[in-house]
Amino acid sequence: MKKVRIGILGLGTVGSGVVCLLNEQRELIQRRLGVEVVIGRIADRSAHGKSAEGVSEDNLNTDFDGLLDDPDIDIVAELIGGTEDARRHILRALKNGKPVVTANKAVLAIHGEEIFASAEEAGCPLGFEASVAGGIPIVRNLREAFAADRIESVAGILNGTCNYILTDMTEKGAEFAATLKIAQELGYAEADPAFDIDGVDASHKIAILANLAYGTPVELEAIPTEGIRGIDAIDISFARDLGFRVKLIAIARETGGQLDIRVHPAMLPEHHPLSQVGGVFNSVAVVGANAGPQAFIGQGAGSAATASAVVGDVVEIVRWLRDNGGQSRLPAAAFLPDSRRRLKILSPKEVRTPYYIRFSALDRPGVLSRISGVFGTFDIGLETIIQKGRAGRDDHVPLVIMTYEASEESMQNALREILSLDVVSPEYALLRVESDGTRFA
Amino acid sequence: MKKVRIGILGLGTVGSGVVCLLNEQRELIQRRLGVEVVIGRIADRSAHGKSAEGVSEDNLNTDFDGLLDDPDIDIVAELIGGTEDARRHILRALKNGKPVVTANKAVLAIHGEEIFASAEEAGCPLGFEASVAGGIPIVRNLREAFAADRIESVAGILNGTCNYILTDMTEKGAEFAATLKIAQELGYAEADPAFDIDGVDASHKIAILANLAYGTPVELEAIPTEGIRGIDAIDISFARDLGFRVKLIAIARETGGQLDIRVHPAMLPEHHPLSQVGGVFNSVAVVGANAGPQAFIGQGAGSAATASAVVGDVVEIVRWLRDNGGQSRLPAAAFLPDSRRRLKILSPKEVRTPYYIRFSALDRPGVLSRISGVFGTFDIGLETIIQKGRAGRDDHVPLVIMTYEASEESMQNALREILSLDVVSPEYALLRVESDGTRFA
Repeated sequence: MKKVRIGILGLGTVGSGVVCLLNEQRELIQRRLGVEVVIGRIADRSAHGKSAEGVSEDNLNTDFDGLLDDPDIDIVAELIGGTEDARRHILRALKNGKPVVTANKAVLAIHGEEIFASAEEAGCPLGFEASVAGGIPIVRNLREAFAADRIESVAGILNGTCNYILTDMTEKGAEFAATLKIAQELGYAEADPAFDIDGVDASHKIAILANLAYGTPVELEAIPTEGIRGIDAIDISFARDLGFRVKLIAIARETGGQLDIRVHPAMLPEHHPLSQVGGVFNSVAVVGANAGPQAFIGQGAGSAATASAVVGDVVEIVRWLRDNGGQSRLPAAAFLPDSRRRLKILSPKEVRTPYYIRFSALDRPGVLSRISGVFGTFDIGLETIIQKGRAGRDDHVPLVIMTYEASEESMQNALREILSLDVVSPEYALLRVESDGTRFA
Repeated sequence: MKKVRIGILGLGTVGSGVVCLLNEQRELIQRRLGVEVVIGRIADRSAHGKSAEGVSEDNLNTDFDGLLDDPDIDIVAELIGGTEDARRHILRALKNGKPVVTANKAVLAIHGEEIFASAEEAGCPLGFEASVAGGIPIVRNLREAFAADRIESVAGILNGTCNYILTDMTEKGAEFAATLKIAQELGYAEADPAFDIDGVDASHKIAILANLAYGTPVELEAIPTEGIRGIDAIDISFARDLGFRVKLIAIARETGGQLDIRVHPAMLPEHHPLSQVGGVFNSVAVVGANAGPQAFIGQGAGSAATASAVVGDVVEIVRWLRDNGGQSRLPAAAFLPDSRRRLKILSPKEVRTPYYIRFSALDRPGVLSRISGVFGTFDIGLETIIQKGRAGRDDHVPLVIMTYEASEESMQNALREILSLDVVSPEYALLRVESDGTRFA
């Protein structure tokens, strides 16, 4: 039986999961592929004192370049994370003609174009299923299952930390700061949580998905990105009353030859599959012009789920090695290099969605009509206006408004004018509503 | 640019959708593959008077064998449905060395082993994504994304007609017969609805999925199959009160070296993704030992969604033709022929699940204890017993019981004994509960 040797870079949580899974599934993989997959060697910065089942002490060390240049290694799995070292290792592996599997979203979001080009030049497959949404096979499906369909939109709940916090706030009616603290204590949020809660992680992931869906390079810096720090418990509660959930959504769609791509908290209809996904779960909704709306739900992180995605990519590449080892059957970035086209990113000002707005206004006749008058001036249609309760000591009441679709520009202009009214307090909340036209019932 | 010619058998709803999609997506497919895909010819039993964009009159006729033997045709798409003619055409195409794409679940569920063997012998890819769950890429994902994982279970809402009827009964509190009639009027159910509502269609589909997930041939006749004719509105309503939805579920799991596979109505927790899928939508939940629980949701039928799955398979095969045209990279049945193992199908008697049971019992002290005593005798633990309201004229009240896991055998024995009690009416309802241990939150 043919034997394929994997070289693993990084024996942390994911690396250990991959070692475990490769050992455990060896027989199953043989039954499906007719090839034996073995771990040839492992490089880890703190290899000393570590061990891995089925790998001799000699083959587990700190010699990254030695592994990358070893002619006996057929496939490299980059599982060290970070951007600079990872980039260097991936490029060196590809230059040596070795297919690469990576779980690293950051290196792809930042150095993706260079890495994709290098994979094309080497004619080597590049697998990165594990880089987005953990165990959910969304990369594979965008590259293959939807290859014959025009993708209208791809949207996801892609950050487990934010989803955990928002789910917990929803269930307990708790405020953001307290909930973050609990999430940190439970290990669902980092000590420095900015990367997750400010939407950066989700923006990396949607950059990769948009790239695959639309065949366009995406500059990370150009993605309008907003996190969940500003979410108040009261708006989550009002959203529920209105039949919505508040989620951090990452979305990309092609519109009029431009790419509408963004990351922000949004209200989703409670029956949308993305709303149903709680805690650290991830989900991705893809609308195909022909396939229609589809949703994929699963574990977005965790050693086993991520390892399962890594090993799935390894299996795919083993198949390729077994069959011919010629040009990779799939372009790394889903489209042939010459067929990719840079889409301009739509200015946030032009993005049109319905909005949820909460003002704090004086509980007095005529106030409602003054506020709705301003919306009228800016051509923003109102679907619902609800005054929540009667005024307490300070004479102010929450006023909740759901609008029809409006551009961010009109909305900001209307907002400025309304906030200047003497009957309205400066405190307010603004959330986009993403119903996406997709119902699953 | 390389050109690949498709031959289409059957220009009905799906065939027309495929013609339309191939024409519409030609440029997108070129951008992804660097190959031009054209429709070479079409055979249809009533070709006379039909037309297809991009296909000359000469190339649209009733000559099936001519198409199948035409050396200029590179790929055959079998879209005629039915079993005998479809089987003959597929085998002839494969014998001629032509890869085949089919949307036909019946021919695969019944003649799958012969067709898989023939594809292996010919070394030709066989695509059948469209045969199960329409546009949802579940065949692809079982063959590829989960290829490195042990699949603990695969379960789905696979019949749109049943799901439409059950959703409508749930929303309107209506009875089965009336709802079926509406579904027939709206075109969601056939004039002869037996194939759908008796679970036969779902059993075809789960047979195919189990085959891929576990590498085993599955005899259709051996699948315990029960439809939805016997569902009463009152049980749907009680299920809701208990936090469940009633769905027609098709499920397969390997347990102790046997295959637990079955189709029947079941109660699912309302927050399970399969519960969220209403109307004619389909969904499939896969639990991977490592990937964890995953759900795929989408359109289970319809011309465009089915065509999108067919063309997705075509694209996959075009890639294979472009790259080498050697042995197919994927075994048709996901496992190498020598590695497939026939799993014995678990006897329904041995299947263990929790149960929902509704009796009609006399509203009198001591009745509850007699009934629960019988369950005790058969070692069936009770989770909940609810007496619904007080007796009306006939002195009987509905008694709803949720049990812990029990084998069907114990349950049937207990049931027999309870129904023989003088305090219990002969009318009762029995539903399995499938919580599947999978939560997505």
